[in-house]
Amino acid sequence: MKPFQDYLDTVNAAIAAIPYPEQPSQLYEPISYHMALGGKRVRPVLALMACDALGGNTATALDAAVGIEMFHNFTLLHDDVMDKADVRRGKPTVHRRWNDNIAILSGDTMLTIATQYIAKTGSQAVMDLFNKTAIEIYEGQQWDMNYEERNDVTVDEYINMIRLKTSVLLGCALKTGALLADARDEDANAIYEAGVNMGLAFQLRDDMLDVWGDPVTFGKEIGGDIMNNKKTFLLINAMRLAQGDDANELRHWLNDPYATRDDKVRGVTALYERLGARELAEEAITRYNDLAVAAFKRVKMSDGDQHAFIDLANKLSGRTY
Amino acid sequence: MKPFQDYLDTVNAAIAAIPYPEQPSQLYEPISYHMALGGKRVRPVLALMACDALGGNTATALDAAVGIEMFHNFTLLHDDVMDKADVRRGKPTVHRRWNDNIAILSGDTMLTIATQYIAKTGSQAVMDLFNKTAIEIYEGQQWDMNYEERNDVTVDEYINMIRLKTSVLLGCALKTGALLADARDEDANAIYEAGVNMGLAFQLRDDMLDVWGDPVTFGKEIGGDIMNNKKTFLLINAMRLAQGDDANELRHWLNDPYATRDDKVRGVTALYERLGARELAEEAITRYNDLAVAAFKRVKMSDGDQHAFIDLANKLSGRTY
Repeated sequence: MKPFQDYLDTVNAAIAAIPYPEQPSQLYEPISYHMALGGKRVRPVLALMACDALGGNTATALDAAVGIEMFHNFTLLHDDVMDKADVRRGKPTVHRRWNDNIAILSGDTMLTIATQYIAKTGSQAVMDLFNKTAIEIYEGQQWDMNYEERNDVTVDEYINMIRLKTSVLLGCALKTGALLADARDEDANAIYEAGVNMGLAFQLRDDMLDVWGDPVTFGKEIGGDIMNNKKTFLLINAMRLAQGDDANELRHWLNDPYATRDDKVRGVTALYERLGARELAEEAITRYNDLAVAAFKRVKMSDGDQHAFIDLANKLSGRTY
Repeated sequence: MKPFQDYLDTVNAAIAAIPYPEQPSQLYEPISYHMALGGKRVRPVLALMACDALGGNTATALDAAVGIEMFHNFTLLHDDVMDKADVRRGKPTVHRRWNDNIAILSGDTMLTIATQYIAKTGSQAVMDLFNKTAIEIYEGQQWDMNYEERNDVTVDEYINMIRLKTSVLLGCALKTGALLADARDEDANAIYEAGVNMGLAFQLRDDMLDVWGDPVTFGKEIGGDIMNNKKTFLLINAMRLAQGDDANELRHWLNDPYATRDDKVRGVTALYERLGARELAEEAITRYNDLAVAAFKRVKMSDGDQHAFIDLANKLSGRTY
């Protein structure tokens, strides 16, 4: 297998070369703007890595890789409208720079362009996996919105939500690469399972970075989830574990509209540490990362390739960015 | 070929039998609600008719027919958000009954479900046509939004906009049926051309019904386009043709925020008649309908089937509902 950076370069070149029509510019400029915001491009790189490791030609997986990244960016674009988010990667979101209608319509267009890239592979199995995954992601987003209205979300419900909203697309990317390499079913399924567990660890780390991350490497202000009372793994566990004075203090931070950002973030962070929510999150990350590693080990590929995947999983579950 | 009603029954039964998951209900209830609002179901019926007329088995076209109708309804659902429309077919629109976020997300889900139905056909040609058509429809919607901001839209620009926004999907439905019947290229292309021209006549008739329709059979209040200064074929021609006093009067109606509905609709309607815009629309409808009929005649099928299509084209271009 090649170094991560090589696949990343291939992916970035392919994304930069997407031939958007010139007109109507109000439809296509937001798409190329949004795609150029960048990002880690983890999903398309995973597709190429899996294809390569399982004996395929990465050129055959490149269209699917671009389609998956386009799809991922479509979900971000529509999520930004739904969340009324102003900023993504330090720049105005599409609906802020243009407007909601343009964001809705250019998002729709991205979904169809993504499907066109998937269709180019000519693989029914890849198309079916892509569509099934897309539906799961919408369901995850709907659960996420539902949970905003509820105070009794369980840990299991939360894990299932992030599995749908985030993890299955990592599994889909890996399995797509495997399918396009004509891998055996057991390998394609094992690498999918690895991707889903890797995705869970990845998302739980994201929850932690919002609290304990370094604002410089994390790229956004610390404490956004805390300020929004977002029901992350940490808050759900804290609500579950807090008793007596701790429960009163947590309720206070969740309900006091006059709390300053500094006070609230500091107060809730201290509760997360005191109540053991931080430790539980670290344990869960280790558990899901171990499951990902075990699943990668079940996939028939070279030791070197296996190590490359395991290194990547460890990196993503322990990342500081 | 069977009577229209038989195909319609088949389509309605298939739509009623779509197996939506139970949960999350906030995602799937809006979809089944929106799909149950009804409509003429012209597009899926056209797909079945074309498949039948060209020697195919309509059962093989049913999935594609459902996918096309689901896609059409997805565009209506998102258009209702963009247009802030309160009512569709006499009932609250999804974003009014639920909210914008649910309308965006359930619309996205409908697009992917539509794609799943298209994928079920196993035909790459059908998938490619579907995706290409979807992109054209988004472009048409974007031009439509752009034209709201402009006062110098030409007749050609308008025709191209409705070709993209409305007509290509009728062509796509017919060609999809033809492709699934393994029709010859020249037949598939001719029936596509017939559909596009039929769609243009259909949309121009829609513009006219908004002004001269019977509110009972039309199903909505007359004059909606006039009240919104919507740049229809009629208004674009009226703006182009009006001179002197007529131009002043038209400008007055377009710019007076205090005009009553009755006065404005009566005044603009009279201008459309006096300036010859009504006649131009009737002529254009006849012209596009003639082109549709000529294209249907080029398709190799039985005389009876040809007459069925021509009857339908005449009906849709002259419809009062």
